[in-house]
Amino acid sequence: MRNSSNGGAMGGRAAGPGGGGGGAPVDKEVDFAQYFCTYSFLYHQKDMLSDRVRMDAYFNAVFENKHHFAGKTVLDVGTGSGILAIWSAQAGAKKVYAVEATSMADHARALVKANNLEHIVEVIQGSVEDISLPEKVDVIISEWMGYFLLRESMFDSVIWARDRWLKPTGVMYPSHARMWFAPIKSGMADRKKSDFDGAMADWHNFSDEIKSYYGVDMGVLTKPFAVEQEKYYIQTAMWNDLNPQQVIGTPTIVKEMDCLTATVSEIEEVRSNVTSVISGQNTRLCGFGGWFDVQFKGRKEDPAQQEIELTTAPSEQHCTHWGQQVFIMSNPINVAEGDNLNLGLVMSRSKENHRLMEIELNCEIKEASGNPKEAFKKTYFIE
Amino acid sequence: MRNSSNGGAMGGRAAGPGGGGGGAPVDKEVDFAQYFCTYSFLYHQKDMLSDRVRMDAYFNAVFENKHHFAGKTVLDVGTGSGILAIWSAQAGAKKVYAVEATSMADHARALVKANNLEHIVEVIQGSVEDISLPEKVDVIISEWMGYFLLRESMFDSVIWARDRWLKPTGVMYPSHARMWFAPIKSGMADRKKSDFDGAMADWHNFSDEIKSYYGVDMGVLTKPFAVEQEKYYIQTAMWNDLNPQQVIGTPTIVKEMDCLTATVSEIEEVRSNVTSVISGQNTRLCGFGGWFDVQFKGRKEDPAQQEIELTTAPSEQHCTHWGQQVFIMSNPINVAEGDNLNLGLVMSRSKENHRLMEIELNCEIKEASGNPKEAFKKTYFIE
Repeated sequence: MRNSSNGGAMGGRAAGPGGGGGGAPVDKEVDFAQYFCTYSFLYHQKDMLSDRVRMDAYFNAVFENKHHFAGKTVLDVGTGSGILAIWSAQAGAKKVYAVEATSMADHARALVKANNLEHIVEVIQGSVEDISLPEKVDVIISEWMGYFLLRESMFDSVIWARDRWLKPTGVMYPSHARMWFAPIKSGMADRKKSDFDGAMADWHNFSDEIKSYYGVDMGVLTKPFAVEQEKYYIQTAMWNDLNPQQVIGTPTIVKEMDCLTATVSEIEEVRSNVTSVISGQNTRLCGFGGWFDVQFKGRKEDPAQQEIELTTAPSEQHCTHWGQQVFIMSNPINVAEGDNLNLGLVMSRSKENHRLMEIELNCEIKEASGNPKEAFKKTYFIE
Repeated sequence: MRNSSNGGAMGGRAAGPGGGGGGAPVDKEVDFAQYFCTYSFLYHQKDMLSDRVRMDAYFNAVFENKHHFAGKTVLDVGTGSGILAIWSAQAGAKKVYAVEATSMADHARALVKANNLEHIVEVIQGSVEDISLPEKVDVIISEWMGYFLLRESMFDSVIWARDRWLKPTGVMYPSHARMWFAPIKSGMADRKKSDFDGAMADWHNFSDEIKSYYGVDMGVLTKPFAVEQEKYYIQTAMWNDLNPQQVIGTPTIVKEMDCLTATVSEIEEVRSNVTSVISGQNTRLCGFGGWFDVQFKGRKEDPAQQEIELTTAPSEQHCTHWGQQVFIMSNPINVAEGDNLNLGLVMSRSKENHRLMEIELNCEIKEASGNPKEAFKKTYFIE
């Protein structure tokens, strides 16, 4: 046997078996093998560094708010290549602690040195939960956001660092975050349904052949196979670069977070009830799109001079490497302008791997008049 | 940040950090997260079950040698869906222990039951090193072969099972295995070199932009990036379905193994010195192809009645899902008919992950006359 497919990786499909139940963090070594290790590759750092929208937002957030950095101490959680730490130092920080769990720390250290900042930026290799700093800091800066904000659950580490290392007067960069959710139309729904149907048709041919050539009846595995394929083709959220015209109803905020006060429990399970009104004429509800934005506003007592926002909303021109997460319906529904979609979302962490998500979605569709139209319930996975 | 690429998975690229040095086995949980888990997916089992060459070989090996199975006890190491265990029972075994480390064991159990063999086949979930059987067995059957035979290092588990559970008179299915290596021509060499050059050109543009837009000099990372990209594009063995015409010199056997007596140390490091003679006219040596075959011959005292061979050699018609492993040269060399390639191979296990391989290849090319032509040394990775 051999593996031509990908298993066990966070980056690819399929969550490996992880730690205890209820979203308990996975064993450290497993976490490293599954999650952290992609970040030790330069090509992956380059992909993120090549995202102009991301880079511009952080660059402007720092350099248009030098008052937060000049003469201050900074902690960069998950420094990767070191870019945010370097900018912090260039903006005048007197000391920057740049923490990175993977061997990318070696490259960050080289980059800091090559840019003549080793007297300011100290790169520390380790998980931020494990390392020790000589002092608390004025600023925690981090680029921790995953698909649909919370995939990867990296913000847990930022919260930990905040509670342990941020001065009572300290500021968070970014300071706020929001998750957005909207009904969409998308050709992907039909394509994936078609892929699923194709996979099942192929299974039936396969099953017939195994019976006739090899005398083994595979029928009992048809249902488990269908469940597995449905999860893969239909229920697993997909990366997409949505065109704004695909958004067919009011985008809704399903989570708002103040990075200064957020707790792990409020992000472990995100519950939200929102209503989106269909704006398109007669159109097909093919599923939903999820994205996020973050703001750099400083804090009330010490605000940003220039508020900056980084948004990953559907855009013609400003696509980010996050794209949006698309949750499709295998059975699109016709909807009309003015229809109300009452949505109940529960987003929680996968038991097998706390860095992956499950979403329970309840949707009740009512006409503008109030007449109930349709209702459905779906489960999605962010893998 | 987010993972759009794959990391940590055996199946995909990139080995995660693993256990101790010198090819020591990884921590069990890490091993599960990285290696075993792809096998818990039905679509992956289906891929292997759809390989007619593989299926026919094992089917014929069993059913044309019923004397080895009828009234005997059998251990199937890594039963997956249970197919080999089922055939063993259908061939008349009185008891079959079907061991499977992943949750695929549940499906195997259902399949056994649906085929009315639960009184013969007992599915046991666990690593074969951890489980206990009530008795020793007459036959160990297993489909353990990875790319270029040894990738995945699953045979270690078969050896362990043999030494612990096989009767002194027992037989191994398969009984023998060989690794083959041959010089090839392939368009892949130019393509990958071109991809690599493209990646470096892109890096230089990227690096210029980071300097001019963001004031950070990435120059110090150019060399590490090139090393990483060379490893990815040039030095990592690739799956390919070679046409026999691409083989331009005598295929050589670099390892022969008797499954009844093989030891882990003889496969932990495979050293081989062979010579291949170029058969093509004026042609380009673009790299090498590696593949394997296994035989079902029984044992000297109790031979097969019908010897069966399963080969993964380049073939127009009999492609297997293993394909061949292709090791390319970024700088193909012109060679002539009669040129002798003296090859020294050392294949060992990756320190980070004992299931992945490194190959050191020394090649001296001499003309038929004996005049030395060229020599080179390359390192490859089987990931």
